[in-house]
Amino acid sequence: MGKQIKTAITPTRAEDYPQWYQEVVKASDLAERSPVRGCMVIKPWGYSLWENIVNVMDGMFKETGVKNAYFPLFIPLSFLEKEAEHVEGFAKECAVVTHHRLEKGSRGALEPAGKLAEPLVVRPTSETIIGDSFSKWVASYRDLPILINQWANVVRWEMRTRLFLRTSEFLWQEGHTAHATQKEAVERTQLMLDVYARVAEEYLAMPVIKGKKSASERFPGAVDTLCIEAMMQDRKGLQAGTSHFLGQNFAKASGIKFQTDQETEEYAWTTSWGSSTRLVGGLIMTHSDDDGIVLPPKVASSHIVLMPIVRRPDDRASVMEFIESLARELKDKTYHHRRLEVEIDDREIGGARGWEWIKKGIPVRVEIGPRDMAENSVYVGRRDKPYKDKASINKDRFVAEITGFLDEIQDGLFDRALSFRKKYTVSIDDRNEFYDFFTPKNQEKPEIHGGFSYSHWCGEEDCEARIKDDLSVTIRCIPSDGVPEKGKCICCGRPGIGRVVFAKAY
Amino acid sequence: MGKQIKTAITPTRAEDYPQWYQEVVKASDLAERSPVRGCMVIKPWGYSLWENIVNVMDGMFKETGVKNAYFPLFIPLSFLEKEAEHVEGFAKECAVVTHHRLEKGSRGALEPAGKLAEPLVVRPTSETIIGDSFSKWVASYRDLPILINQWANVVRWEMRTRLFLRTSEFLWQEGHTAHATQKEAVERTQLMLDVYARVAEEYLAMPVIKGKKSASERFPGAVDTLCIEAMMQDRKGLQAGTSHFLGQNFAKASGIKFQTDQETEEYAWTTSWGSSTRLVGGLIMTHSDDDGIVLPPKVASSHIVLMPIVRRPDDRASVMEFIESLARELKDKTYHHRRLEVEIDDREIGGARGWEWIKKGIPVRVEIGPRDMAENSVYVGRRDKPYKDKASINKDRFVAEITGFLDEIQDGLFDRALSFRKKYTVSIDDRNEFYDFFTPKNQEKPEIHGGFSYSHWCGEEDCEARIKDDLSVTIRCIPSDGVPEKGKCICCGRPGIGRVVFAKAY
Repeated sequence: MGKQIKTAITPTRAEDYPQWYQEVVKASDLAERSPVRGCMVIKPWGYSLWENIVNVMDGMFKETGVKNAYFPLFIPLSFLEKEAEHVEGFAKECAVVTHHRLEKGSRGALEPAGKLAEPLVVRPTSETIIGDSFSKWVASYRDLPILINQWANVVRWEMRTRLFLRTSEFLWQEGHTAHATQKEAVERTQLMLDVYARVAEEYLAMPVIKGKKSASERFPGAVDTLCIEAMMQDRKGLQAGTSHFLGQNFAKASGIKFQTDQETEEYAWTTSWGSSTRLVGGLIMTHSDDDGIVLPPKVASSHIVLMPIVRRPDDRASVMEFIESLARELKDKTYHHRRLEVEIDDREIGGARGWEWIKKGIPVRVEIGPRDMAENSVYVGRRDKPYKDKASINKDRFVAEITGFLDEIQDGLFDRALSFRKKYTVSIDDRNEFYDFFTPKNQEKPEIHGGFSYSHWCGEEDCEARIKDDLSVTIRCIPSDGVPEKGKCICCGRPGIGRVVFAKAY
Repeated sequence: MGKQIKTAITPTRAEDYPQWYQEVVKASDLAERSPVRGCMVIKPWGYSLWENIVNVMDGMFKETGVKNAYFPLFIPLSFLEKEAEHVEGFAKECAVVTHHRLEKGSRGALEPAGKLAEPLVVRPTSETIIGDSFSKWVASYRDLPILINQWANVVRWEMRTRLFLRTSEFLWQEGHTAHATQKEAVERTQLMLDVYARVAEEYLAMPVIKGKKSASERFPGAVDTLCIEAMMQDRKGLQAGTSHFLGQNFAKASGIKFQTDQETEEYAWTTSWGSSTRLVGGLIMTHSDDDGIVLPPKVASSHIVLMPIVRRPDDRASVMEFIESLARELKDKTYHHRRLEVEIDDREIGGARGWEWIKKGIPVRVEIGPRDMAENSVYVGRRDKPYKDKASINKDRFVAEITGFLDEIQDGLFDRALSFRKKYTVSIDDRNEFYDFFTPKNQEKPEIHGGFSYSHWCGEEDCEARIKDDLSVTIRCIPSDGVPEKGKCICCGRPGIGRVVFAKAY
């Protein structure tokens, strides 16, 4: 047996992946469970990560002509019911407001009072309430397209929750657009998926597969749901953003009609697209290691921490002066449209200090003592390298090259994640092999297994359902870069529609 | 009778102020009522105004060391009950979630199902739920201060609502801090009020009076409530931001305890402070005129609109080229940390086009036709000047001086609002005069009347209540720049505690 290396996170990924995830989130100080069932508290370190993602995405939305707006938190029950599949899809998991005040009851305790004539549902998504506005805003083809986004909280009463990945309340953006033609709406659906893919790959350093959902995994009420899918380190898939072509379904439900340039009346074609704080969960599970989270520099809550290493109290003032001057130099620099963010941690708590920052995933750690100062150098550790792999660098060179270091880290994380995905992506054409691939070898303590399998599918829901029942494996997507290829359905052997991505998923 | 000048808004302020406000909001395209009782839809033009205010304020918060975080939308009833005055203050107007799914009932219609064991209140404010987190985050004096802010939606079930000024759901920020000493908490309360005052005066061009609320107007559960108060054009007061010193009340309710450096255990001292989309309502009522809203350039949704004036179709392409090149030049410029925002409106809808932009309050309108182009000039109208007061300016001079023009508009709006407030601010020491000042002369159709009266008050709630009953006039604040002065209470004649600001208010 090899030497046991102590890790900052217990258990490790290999020992117990789900528990590892919880511990990473806890140790990173990103978020914690709240006393409200299924809801989380996003702590400052986690919220600033989210803010950075929001800023990047918001800028990209606006570049495509989208404008932000805000619609009500509450949706009257009768609105939700306007689209039959839609209400069916959300009825089982929604928070319902039934009263509008509290009053002392017969036992002297406060109770709900002032019953509402119509219950209000806390928005699980806003197609129906936004559709109502669109129906008022649109009269002529000249009023189209309407390109709207809102940053908001939504509530879906999930039974089993997990921080960032699945919570009863989460933060998200939901885009809603209306168009005069089907073609334009279809193009918009694809355009927004492309934005999500860029955010995921270029900013979160998380490689994704773009594709289309099968009918059974579609958004309730949509004609088509496009998605981006990423592979986590337990080789499961994570849906990281979806873009829906809604056809005229919601336009008909909400009465979004317009007069064409031919003076006929038509229903508009609409889209909706969303991504959420779930992206943070995906980021964590893509990059973190057994020492905690690893933040991609472009969206990191902060970039660099400066830590004085002082044994003699007399040295303290001069080292701190050196550090503060360095901090000013660094903060003057820009890294991907954002000022470099620098933390100074002068707490005297020994080795725990450096480990805290490792667990928080800050890209670069810098230690500075009297000798470094005398040599005008800094002692630098990078989060993407082993803890002990630190190096002394001339201070001025460090300042000059810091954004290059950060780019190296960013690119390295992406490459590592992409290699990982490639390593566990297979093409399986044999049914037994397929079942074997997705079956844990030790049923008692399921090890990390499987991955993404590109296999043929006949297009029938029966086969999809059977595989789901047997293996808990679903079709993550019908990949959009799939090459036409003949083959037999991995389940029934009938002719397939092409290879689709099968995987277990969050 | 003088010549009737046609205004873009009907009725005018003088004719029917409340209705004028509704019409200004409607004509400006900032927001509209939603089908959900008391909730509004904030449209893109209004939301970008709010975004600009948010960005300014968020930057100022962060400069004082505050970090953003996010806490649950729902508050368990038992949490709200922890502070007696607090729950009393909010029980009458809160949305209560009682069920977590919808099911078909006996008549086949969807009904609330899955009753919650404990009702959840949609947050009207978050002291109690955030206090719970603080109680877990604080153990030692070393963990203090905690300086947190959240941008969120809140719900207060108001009976009479008005767009931006009072809506059932509104967007706001709520800051929450915890400190080791009373002194530090009191200072923080004042510091955040100062931030609000700076945002109001320097960005919204809305002069405010800083002061303290009387006991009856305090936030439920607070020891002291500081506020900023502005005068609207109907001479009523508007509370535009509040900062609360909570003493140890909420720390005791939530158990926020810490070990001091003397190793004793103490409750923390907390503050909270909030401002909301109500600021937009204040901005509208401070600056708008009978032609619609007037946006202060520093927070304006956009700065400049460029409009081609083309009679011969042949001229169109060259004029548009000139306009697009001008737009690029302008967009390269920065105005108070923000890129200049430029709209191009080439719709061929005649004179309605210019009036739309006036009603939307854009600071600068630019018309360009073939002759302007030939002379390299632009024809400029400013929203702070009468419609017809337009001038031809050399294009390059216009580009060079645009930020100066915008500053002139910004400063002019502030000066005008300050003059207005001064004009209708009085010091009254005589009871009859006071009653007369606040009594409309025509009871049938109350004209705009009154203003701010600096008058003496004995400090007793009885007198305050009496004036409120008689005149609907309240103490807006005990001004913080008040000079100690002896005088008799305007109501009872007993010795006063100093002059306070009396006014009718929103």
